[in-house]
Amino acid sequence: MARLVLCRHGQSEWNAKNLFTGWADVDLSEKGHQEAKTAGEKLKNNNIQLDVVYTSLLQRAIKTTYHILNESHQLYLPTYKHWRLNERHYGNLQGLNKDDARDDFGEEQVHIWRRSYDTAPPAQDEDQRQSYINDPKYRDLDARVMPDAESLKDTLVRVKPYWNDHIAPQLLAGKTVLVSAHGNSLRALIKYLEDVSDEDITGLEIKTGEPLVYELTDDLKVEDKYYL
Amino acid sequence: MARLVLCRHGQSEWNAKNLFTGWADVDLSEKGHQEAKTAGEKLKNNNIQLDVVYTSLLQRAIKTTYHILNESHQLYLPTYKHWRLNERHYGNLQGLNKDDARDDFGEEQVHIWRRSYDTAPPAQDEDQRQSYINDPKYRDLDARVMPDAESLKDTLVRVKPYWNDHIAPQLLAGKTVLVSAHGNSLRALIKYLEDVSDEDITGLEIKTGEPLVYELTDDLKVEDKYYL
Repeated sequence: MARLVLCRHGQSEWNAKNLFTGWADVDLSEKGHQEAKTAGEKLKNNNIQLDVVYTSLLQRAIKTTYHILNESHQLYLPTYKHWRLNERHYGNLQGLNKDDARDDFGEEQVHIWRRSYDTAPPAQDEDQRQSYINDPKYRDLDARVMPDAESLKDTLVRVKPYWNDHIAPQLLAGKTVLVSAHGNSLRALIKYLEDVSDEDITGLEIKTGEPLVYELTDDLKVEDKYYL
Repeated sequence: MARLVLCRHGQSEWNAKNLFTGWADVDLSEKGHQEAKTAGEKLKNNNIQLDVVYTSLLQRAIKTTYHILNESHQLYLPTYKHWRLNERHYGNLQGLNKDDARDDFGEEQVHIWRRSYDTAPPAQDEDQRQSYINDPKYRDLDARVMPDAESLKDTLVRVKPYWNDHIAPQLLAGKTVLVSAHGNSLRALIKYLEDVSDEDITGLEIKTGEPLVYELTDDLKVEDKYYL
């Protein structure tokens, strides 16, 4: 039986300041570091022996992964980092205070951007786009693939190939896999895994720093699901 | 032009206690963590942009790698961990105090084990061997390959295939590569790279926590070599 462990990173410096983050590569806050360590201790206390680990290119997810593996004494595990597991791109909202955004665009509009399945926020401007294209962490990414803003639906579209080509094969081989990522890249993945409707998925909340275990059948149907 | 950056991990808890370490998976000391961070700052201050990173399966090397990448803002880089980059296996001496070993076996004998090119220390006993074979970090390793004790020559024999099949191809493609490993796995690698004689290699000391840069020609000849 395969097991998939999902973990959403803890508080970042911008979460703490109530800013839209998306692809902005901000650090964990002190609380976020602590949440990640606690997640690792839970893995250790539950004797979860992982085989392989996947995370995003963003430091808040990579640092969370490091703490989880360190606390559970599994630093030696193969760990793959990929842009397809990045947080949803929040377009021109990135860096904006969420309350200011409500003042500027209206409560209703901001709610739609945050909670509708297929509405993307306003695209980032050209300067921002160039700064991402020039970022060495995306140097192997065809610029035509670089998102300017994503809905949750868009996020799922780019998460899915990585799931199908890299993560699912490990699970089909019976491995125990950790995916250490972000609220919306994990939400997209759960939508696909559990076939959640477009309406229901945006209401699904994933706890931060709490490993969520899926026990899967041979053909990757969900048999059981629980937080550690 | 390809660049190879070698970094030997800083002080471990057993270095601090003057114990033979080898494959024993001990943590960095506080000083060792600090040395690793300083190495990362040097990479950053010298604008060394890496492409790919290799390290061993031992936590003192993996933690050093993490600090280097974190301080130089390159955590997103692909990082491969492999047993072939592990420290030289010190056999039955692992865990022994170096002064006690001199009392037990004589100054001359311990010097030979530490500094001859092709003399391995006494083999680890069967219990120790089993504990390594049962260690989850070596579960994909054919037990026949598990060393019981290694000379520096033995270490080079098992480092070389990883160099030839994984590291060298990156350098031949013009990449900048970090190998973050151990005193003797790096010494073995340098012997091969610079074609150092059996006599001279055992006297070659690699500074801890100091990135050593090799600038290489298209066919991997050493053009220049310096500490940052």
